[in-house]
Amino acid sequence: MKAILKAESAPGAFLSEVAVPKPGPTDVLVKIKATSICGTDHHIYIWNEWAQRRIKPPKIMGHEFAGEVVEVGSAVRSAKVGDYVSAESHIVCGHCPQCLMGEKPVCQNTRILGVDTDGCFAEYAVVPEDNLWHNDSSIPADIASIQEPLGNAIHTVLAGEPKGKTMAIFGCGPIGLMAIGVAKAAGASFVAAVDVNEYRLDIAEKMNADLAINSKDRDPLEMILDYTHGVGMDAVLEMSGAPAVYGQMFKAVRAGGRVTLLGLPAKPVPVNFSDDVVMKGVTIQGITGRKVWDTWLTGRELLTSGALDLSPVITHHLDLEEYKLGMDLMTSGNSGKIILYPGGAR
Amino acid sequence: MKAILKAESAPGAFLSEVAVPKPGPTDVLVKIKATSICGTDHHIYIWNEWAQRRIKPPKIMGHEFAGEVVEVGSAVRSAKVGDYVSAESHIVCGHCPQCLMGEKPVCQNTRILGVDTDGCFAEYAVVPEDNLWHNDSSIPADIASIQEPLGNAIHTVLAGEPKGKTMAIFGCGPIGLMAIGVAKAAGASFVAAVDVNEYRLDIAEKMNADLAINSKDRDPLEMILDYTHGVGMDAVLEMSGAPAVYGQMFKAVRAGGRVTLLGLPAKPVPVNFSDDVVMKGVTIQGITGRKVWDTWLTGRELLTSGALDLSPVITHHLDLEEYKLGMDLMTSGNSGKIILYPGGAR
Amino acid sequence: MKAILKAESAPGAFLSEVAVPKPGPTDVLVKIKATSICGTDHHIYIWNEWAQRRIKPPKIMGHEFAGEVVEVGSAVRSAKVGDYVSAESHIVCGHCPQCLMGEKPVCQNTRILGVDTDGCFAEYAVVPEDNLWHNDSSIPADIASIQEPLGNAIHTVLAGEPKGKTMAIFGCGPIGLMAIGVAKAAGASFVAAVDVNEYRLDIAEKMNADLAINSKDRDPLEMILDYTHGVGMDAVLEMSGAPAVYGQMFKAVRAGGRVTLLGLPAKPVPVNFSDDVVMKGVTIQGITGRKVWDTWLTGRELLTSGALDLSPVITHHLDLEEYKLGMDLMTSGNSGKIILYPGGAR
Amino acid sequence: MKAILKAESAPGAFLSEVAVPKPGPTDVLVKIKATSICGTDHHIYIWNEWAQRRIKPPKIMGHEFAGEVVEVGSAVRSAKVGDYVSAESHIVCGHCPQCLMGEKPVCQNTRILGVDTDGCFAEYAVVPEDNLWHNDSSIPADIASIQEPLGNAIHTVLAGEPKGKTMAIFGCGPIGLMAIGVAKAAGASFVAAVDVNEYRLDIAEKMNADLAINSKDRDPLEMILDYTHGVGMDAVLEMSGAPAVYGQMFKAVRAGGRVTLLGLPAKPVPVNFSDDVVMKGVTIQGITGRKVWDTWLTGRELLTSGALDLSPVITHHLDLEEYKLGMDLMTSGNSGKIILYPGGAR
Repeated sequence: MKAILKAESAPGAFLSEVAVPKPGPTDVLVKIKATSICGTDHHIYIWNEWAQRRIKPPKIMGHEFAGEVVEVGSAVRSAKVGDYVSAESHIVCGHCPQCLMGEKPVCQNTRILGVDTDGCFAEYAVVPEDNLWHNDSSIPADIASIQEPLGNAIHTVLAGEPKGKTMAIFGCGPIGLMAIGVAKAAGASFVAAVDVNEYRLDIAEKMNADLAINSKDRDPLEMILDYTHGVGMDAVLEMSGAPAVYGQMFKAVRAGGRVTLLGLPAKPVPVNFSDDVVMKGVTIQGITGRKVWDTWLTGRELLTSGALDLSPVITHHLDLEEYKLGMDLMTSGNSGKIILYPGGAR
Repeated sequence: MKAILKAESAPGAFLSEVAVPKPGPTDVLVKIKATSICGTDHHIYIWNEWAQRRIKPPKIMGHEFAGEVVEVGSAVRSAKVGDYVSAESHIVCGHCPQCLMGEKPVCQNTRILGVDTDGCFAEYAVVPEDNLWHNDSSIPADIASIQEPLGNAIHTVLAGEPKGKTMAIFGCGPIGLMAIGVAKAAGASFVAAVDVNEYRLDIAEKMNADLAINSKDRDPLEMILDYTHGVGMDAVLEMSGAPAVYGQMFKAVRAGGRVTLLGLPAKPVPVNFSDDVVMKGVTIQGITGRKVWDTWLTGRELLTSGALDLSPVITHHLDLEEYKLGMDLMTSGNSGKIILYPGGAR
Repeated sequence: MKAILKAESAPGAFLSEVAVPKPGPTDVLVKIKATSICGTDHHIYIWNEWAQRRIKPPKIMGHEFAGEVVEVGSAVRSAKVGDYVSAESHIVCGHCPQCLMGEKPVCQNTRILGVDTDGCFAEYAVVPEDNLWHNDSSIPADIASIQEPLGNAIHTVLAGEPKGKTMAIFGCGPIGLMAIGVAKAAGASFVAAVDVNEYRLDIAEKMNADLAINSKDRDPLEMILDYTHGVGMDAVLEMSGAPAVYGQMFKAVRAGGRVTLLGLPAKPVPVNFSDDVVMKGVTIQGITGRKVWDTWLTGRELLTSGALDLSPVITHHLDLEEYKLGMDLMTSGNSGKIILYPGGAR
Repeated sequence: MKAILKAESAPGAFLSEVAVPKPGPTDVLVKIKATSICGTDHHIYIWNEWAQRRIKPPKIMGHEFAGEVVEVGSAVRSAKVGDYVSAESHIVCGHCPQCLMGEKPVCQNTRILGVDTDGCFAEYAVVPEDNLWHNDSSIPADIASIQEPLGNAIHTVLAGEPKGKTMAIFGCGPIGLMAIGVAKAAGASFVAAVDVNEYRLDIAEKMNADLAINSKDRDPLEMILDYTHGVGMDAVLEMSGAPAVYGQMFKAVRAGGRVTLLGLPAKPVPVNFSDDVVMKGVTIQGITGRKVWDTWLTGRELLTSGALDLSPVITHHLDLEEYKLGMDLMTSGNSGKIILYPGGAR
């Protein structure tokens, strides 16, 4: 079968012909219909520091997909050939302290599909039964393939009650854009979206941001305090990873509000904890992964009810073979989600 | 009446003779039996930067007390002469956004007894009815007078479930020491207390700390990770305000755990948010004030049930006139809570 | 001034001329623009058993209103002449066990405006400052006057998370009708409304019920189980007080779901607790009053954001003098909310 | 191997010689050290109505145990030969709506060890890996074998916060007795235990009940209201299944309190919902099963910390072959937990 292989410890990846993998007793084999490129895949492709530490080539890349079950292992009970599925990419151990407490997103032995195991930038992929998600048949494959990053957006937005709340979202990459849509669908009364890229701010408006702020031109803090009569936002979501944002977001959040962090700043950031956190009674939340299956259920409900339309976030549909173009688009910043089709985009 | 007066914008305070104040229609007048010195009072006494910004002399100092109602205003309904009372010192406005949402600890118009109004380092003090707390008659006046800082300890410890959890408490000032007792009484399975002062670490052990670590001699992080087999603590409480602690506490907390901040560091502190907060799924909570009346109810229950004994925390009983000695003891660090008695300590 | 007076212990009420009341030091005097008739007012008017036990005539009736502050007591801080206000009608004591725990809706010493004190079916009414609610200026007086029963609907709907959930609402009186709108605005994925009155089921559809079931014609249980493929509803709200509903609602709720009770059945109802509650892991919630000020804030947000339109629920606008017509309409069942205007309806 | 076999659809059971079962790929084989008799086993033994509907003989009885892993299936990852284990007896499906929502105790396809599959009244038993619990080595086998019913007690007690609360527990069977100990260990300020059996009330006192009430001699409601000055209990736990209790418990709970139901009354019970539930703002909770693994973690912490001593609840240690004596003791009511040892009790 065709697969995008991270073949060696160096930038890039290769389109390769490899054997179709065999599912173990608790696995299924999925024929991939659509697979989307995540920032993590881009990190692996450009071979950044994190990738150099984490990835042991050769590995088939990719972890976001929608497809059809074509074979099931001997001990599989809840899936059958023909099922329309996606998957939670975090394969948790189930027996570390965190797993026993139900805190699976911080399992200490997490393996990730397409990172620690062979992934889904291929015609077929093996997935453990416990990680399978049965898609609603009304959701098309491109949208279904991005339910996993949607889950990050949901996990971040719903880390506190969004209903009737004001929110600022710093960073309009694909997850930030999805977070805008989730926040509005979940009843946020006002969502300000902040970025430096007009291409992405345009999509932010399509995702129903009440205010799209280009921080190259305008001071987001001033606009936020102005809108809230000096009170500040109920919630600030950090989805850019830009250290500069930290200087603004603790001023932008109201006393008693929350700052929820999904972005990964590349270096330590100084915070004035006395004035900005303790005296203000602010809560800061680090978010990783998704709640299994809570966030997936919420995603399905948002998508099938029509409350959330993700189509503005998907900007490119490519053949699997065009993965280099996809990676270059990611590098440019002028893209939302990019979908690859092993069976062809057209 | 006698009163300790912050008479001018300079270090120090004066024992003065002033008129007994008159309660308004919604106030009561309390005869003070015991009043305790808070770190805030010490800040006002030594006239630090915060005090210079906040305090408008002349003001009678003090906000922690136990006493007896001797006069009630015309519209007072729930208190009568003879009642044995203490008070919540934060006088909230009731109509700012935070108050309407029930987040009174971050009321944007808070006035504080003995800070923004005349306080209780005196024979008598005026207190609004809405701030009065009726003491259980079994609680002696010295203990009753420190229910308010106990409330800070409770607010910090109970910002997450303590039952069956491991905790590290950095900083063994009076509130840190009370937090140790609260955590153990609330079912924490293991509490490590960290400080640099042996006098205070001795009290920490009397408050039932499972492990008292002098960080001048031993590495708290190493000891904590050793005890938890590398997992880290369920909760880390920062009650010292020492910036150096920040470098340790994010390593000492387990993935998925919480870092709860009550201490006020004097300058910004750098944090590695990617590794220490986001990827670990850690929550950071800024704590200010008390939950009215939740924390007061919890304090009463802990004290009257015998689950919590605060007597080791009270190290000195002084006449009101000995306030300078009390302040000097605070400066030395070799003290726990210091109680002043307007009617004489002996 | 004109007032509708429950003058004696007998059915009916009188339009009377009485003195304008004087506010005490912690009260305000409000000029009433619009006041709405509650089921409780109807009980007092027809002088049912509950009313005979509770009401001590003479009392000015009425507790739901919108109006303007025209005088403030000497100790009032947060209101001024000209403010556009409504009020929480439950006057709580603030010092019973329930109040101290923050459970004000079950204060053991609650007094109710227009029930235990003189009310607002009049040109003017006295209201305690602590019970005042400042209306958003964009909300018209008729809608503002029904924020209080809206609060009951909100309290009932939000007793569990409604987002993405299926709900059945039994009983389409005014509060049931408002609950339909609240549930849909709060993201309920499906709301089935059940009643026996076509007039009210028509309004239910205007309030966005997904399914309006006349239980005289169709079996609601069958329709609910059919829609949910036998699973049952996430939440069942009982807002009719009809004992017959109890036989259906425990079958209509899914295992692990909730049954939330606002209606008051006139007699004991048998329940099969083993099969219908314990083995199903069902939670039953008794709801009384509103959360102050949580439900009021939610109501304001729903109304000002446009997410909730209550206009279909208001069916009649009458002069205050037409109160008898209003009461007769209530008796007929062919009404939603009826608004009385002391200054005239037209 | 030896096994207690429910061989036919009739009262009783047989000590039989059967083949040692083989574990499937995701199962382990456990050598049973100690197994305890549950009320459910007794129902199956006496062949009551429920058993007649549910049980398909032949089945090896029993579902509560402690033992050692002696063989693991090919796909098992988290267990190895020699591990000291017990098990959660509810085998859930993982894909019904309730499972996906994380509400596993109400999984709609639950199979139960020793009820729907062969159980552990035997020398060996097969258990799915996902149901295995690794015991702390400090917990002896008899105590370890009753962690599962302890989990029911924990689930019931912790359905609301017990800390500092007053509680009444109706019914002092083994789970009720364990609930007393759990409630006290979790910080309940006062626990009243009610039963009609002096043998069990004696154990209730050993489990630290503050008040043991024999309802044949004294009126529990009167004593409860007397103790609480008429307010009522914060929580009432129904663990008897006796319909008569329902008439008392809604009067015994305070306004705003909770009634938590684990007992299974044999017939419908009438409730005055208006006065006793709605107007009082009471919550009723049906409890089934355990939270996996929350309640198991709590149980382990309570047992290993010394906060909870279950030894008074275990009243008899018998050889497996003495199962008939065990069942007769259950019938008499003069027993707590009865432990059977396949390897001999002595």
